[in-house]
Amino acid sequence: MARDFQGTLQSFQQYLRKMQDISDASSVLYWDARTGMPKKGVDRRSQVIATLSAEAFRMSISDEMGNYIAYFLEPENNEKLDDIMRAVLAECKKEYDRSRKIPADTFEEYVRLTAKAESVWEDAKDTADFSMFRPYLEQIVQMNAEFIEYWGYTGNKYDTLLEYYEPGMTVEKLDRIFGDLRKELVSLLQRVKESPHKPRTKIFEQYFDPAKQREFSIYILKKMGYDFHAGRIDETVHPFEISFGPGDVRITTKYLPNDFRSALFSSMHEGGHALYEQNISERLIGTILCSGTSMGIHESQSRFWENIVGRSKTFWSHFLKAAIEHFPEQFRGVTLEEFYRGINEARESLIRIEADELTYNLHIMIRYEIEKALFNGDLQVKDLPLAWAEKMREYLGVEPQHDGEGCLQDVHWSGGSFGYFPSYALGNIYSAQFLHAMKKEMPAYDSYVADGRLIPIKDWLAGNIYQYGKMQTPEEILRRVAGEEVNGKYLVDYLTAKYTDVYQL
Amino acid sequence: MARDFQGTLQSFQQYLRKMQDISDASSVLYWDARTGMPKKGVDRRSQVIATLSAEAFRMSISDEMGNYIAYFLEPENNEKLDDIMRAVLAECKKEYDRSRKIPADTFEEYVRLTAKAESVWEDAKDTADFSMFRPYLEQIVQMNAEFIEYWGYTGNKYDTLLEYYEPGMTVEKLDRIFGDLRKELVSLLQRVKESPHKPRTKIFEQYFDPAKQREFSIYILKKMGYDFHAGRIDETVHPFEISFGPGDVRITTKYLPNDFRSALFSSMHEGGHALYEQNISERLIGTILCSGTSMGIHESQSRFWENIVGRSKTFWSHFLKAAIEHFPEQFRGVTLEEFYRGINEARESLIRIEADELTYNLHIMIRYEIEKALFNGDLQVKDLPLAWAEKMREYLGVEPQHDGEGCLQDVHWSGGSFGYFPSYALGNIYSAQFLHAMKKEMPAYDSYVADGRLIPIKDWLAGNIYQYGKMQTPEEILRRVAGEEVNGKYLVDYLTAKYTDVYQL
Repeated sequence: MARDFQGTLQSFQQYLRKMQDISDASSVLYWDARTGMPKKGVDRRSQVIATLSAEAFRMSISDEMGNYIAYFLEPENNEKLDDIMRAVLAECKKEYDRSRKIPADTFEEYVRLTAKAESVWEDAKDTADFSMFRPYLEQIVQMNAEFIEYWGYTGNKYDTLLEYYEPGMTVEKLDRIFGDLRKELVSLLQRVKESPHKPRTKIFEQYFDPAKQREFSIYILKKMGYDFHAGRIDETVHPFEISFGPGDVRITTKYLPNDFRSALFSSMHEGGHALYEQNISERLIGTILCSGTSMGIHESQSRFWENIVGRSKTFWSHFLKAAIEHFPEQFRGVTLEEFYRGINEARESLIRIEADELTYNLHIMIRYEIEKALFNGDLQVKDLPLAWAEKMREYLGVEPQHDGEGCLQDVHWSGGSFGYFPSYALGNIYSAQFLHAMKKEMPAYDSYVADGRLIPIKDWLAGNIYQYGKMQTPEEILRRVAGEEVNGKYLVDYLTAKYTDVYQL
Repeated sequence: MARDFQGTLQSFQQYLRKMQDISDASSVLYWDARTGMPKKGVDRRSQVIATLSAEAFRMSISDEMGNYIAYFLEPENNEKLDDIMRAVLAECKKEYDRSRKIPADTFEEYVRLTAKAESVWEDAKDTADFSMFRPYLEQIVQMNAEFIEYWGYTGNKYDTLLEYYEPGMTVEKLDRIFGDLRKELVSLLQRVKESPHKPRTKIFEQYFDPAKQREFSIYILKKMGYDFHAGRIDETVHPFEISFGPGDVRITTKYLPNDFRSALFSSMHEGGHALYEQNISERLIGTILCSGTSMGIHESQSRFWENIVGRSKTFWSHFLKAAIEHFPEQFRGVTLEEFYRGINEARESLIRIEADELTYNLHIMIRYEIEKALFNGDLQVKDLPLAWAEKMREYLGVEPQHDGEGCLQDVHWSGGSFGYFPSYALGNIYSAQFLHAMKKEMPAYDSYVADGRLIPIKDWLAGNIYQYGKMQTPEEILRRVAGEEVNGKYLVDYLTAKYTDVYQL
């Protein structure tokens, strides 16, 4: 490596660009495989994606990368970096340390294990057979416990896992936040259950022409400020958002012919993710920072647009007219009240991804508590199904009939993604904090929504959150935007007000 | 590098797989950029494609590659390779030598020159200003002349350029073949021009719903045996075929609302290329051999399906019914004779890519003779427009009004692709040779076509040509399949019979 600063910087940047380009290429191939690839292309494509991913990964943990990191961490070199390069360096170091602290052969074993575990999990879920998956899960948990020793920890061991997905998050904070939130939500759900004023949803369960649904989703996405010159919408079994840089951020959805809600709200959800990615500063294009700062902050945006905007009465006070224009027969004579209450039906359910705004967080808390217990020796994998059922009964008042609709329902654990689940609930919490801050700074918020003018809202979020990409941590963003750290109170207030209205509590 | 044979072979194969995977990934990104990429993705995408292409190229000419080639060329190692690896090695050596024989800085200069030249050519073509392009073309020709010295030559200097696109092809052969062919075609064209029996084409110049055109193209492609589980058809400005391995071979076309012929015949043309790629042996998947053997043999297949099958009377004796079913109003009352003659209209024209089956080869010969003269010192770049006009008058009886429709019409020279043009005419010649061989071996050919049964034809071509990929040279294929080397006689016979019929000569 050249020892002069400028030369070394230049070759580091070239190295990083190549790594990022290969990684983005891999994303394009993934998108294509999910959307339009002919089925006989599967094997070859898996091979090509594996090669690109492996190459990008190899570069992120190579000795060369290690040398660059060491060089630019030397104080006299570090001080000469600009703010972007300093943040890039920190991000590279994070990934590098995560993998290099683990002995290479252990890490390889783990990669093989999780690859195998995912296909075993699929079968186990389909046949609701936990015993099939159990030995794999035990090993994955065991290895992650070892990893925590390699990575190190100060407070709770589980903090190390949380930190990867949501920098700055700890068990101490989550116990407090989730503890308060749970009490409120369980009690609110109880009142909702007891309310005699149930919303009616039949109106959404008619035939809605998929082509018309697509048109309506695009109409709403445009109103949100999603830029179709920098994106496109396609159809897949599982909706997702994927970015190849701010100039090309794509989303997918799924049109259910007999349900109006599914495609629309998933479009707004993925659209929220996409607005984040489309509005990252051009300064960060092609760098590792050109991405949302954390899972939690990213999820706050999908939830903000799907729920806080998309399921609000104010929003539909404007857009119901357009919905009726798109589906005049289905929505003939529907009132705003009826429509609004219908899209906000809440009820206890077994499956996380089908849960509503109110019960969703309770599903997350169950997973959080189980993960925490697993890594602190308070729960063994063999007792997982029982622990799951108990918590479901306690928080939601329902119990799975089998593990397929219980502790086997999510893919995350088969890939070793422990510490990921809390991000979803944090996203909900953050989104309510952002709403509160936005309304204070932009008192016209409600009138904008009532006029169907969503661009000022998108612009506010872009200016305050989106543009920074990974240049700021979740904590920095929260403190700057909301003026305080993570706080579940705003979500409680928001949900209480909403469900009091919807269920006439 | 490990010095034991098995270890070295394994690491070489791994190296090759990675190179091929990166190259295929780059092709997927290219396809996406042409078909559905949002326009703001252009800059970032160019960067990513450039990185992947550069990496695949770097690997193909690296010292590591050089060491592998040297090692496996050693007789005691070479004899232990199987037939596939021996062919792979030859192909790698060809690419390696092509680039490495040229001094690195000269080669870099050339890459920069041609990149710049292409955009200059675009402007020059648009403004019909040859003087703008001339200095670039002079330098490109000059550098290619230098390259020929580096690469070496035995007979004619231009042979070295021909060899790259059509292994085994020489000036000596082409002079003979093209010489005979030209005499026959010029005379046939003369008779066609003089014929009072002109086909009528008005029937094809009505409104044809693009969605219906797409349906009809897909219908015909399926009949040809194009596998939609291993391919798809999209729309682009310039139709093309692209392969990411036999399991995923895509084509594109362009639907002109006011012309029935364009999309259909371009679909059959690209479909012919695609049949070749879809039917390469699985043994070659993921290797450098998984591709058509030469430009000429590839083109023989697109021409075979587009022209020999798609513009034959026998074909339409079956498929006219389907055309009428798709477009009952437009084709009401049309006779087979009328339809067949209409799609085979031939006339002198200025633009190669718009030329018909009869005149197309004359356009190629002009380019061949000019290229040959440029590299043998018989023509200077400055005299090119004049030479072009003279040959156009002599062969086709027309002259361009400006260089935009003359010597500036094709992109090839701006990228330095000298030696490429003859492949197009060779494709036509080969296709007639293959037809002759096929009819001899499969006397039911005509009755198959008349019954709309195209699969036996596809299967015959797959078995005799497609499956081999690059495992056999064009010469080996010709000798095995047609029993002789390249011979223009069959094309002359075929065209004479056809145009005698169409123009009632």
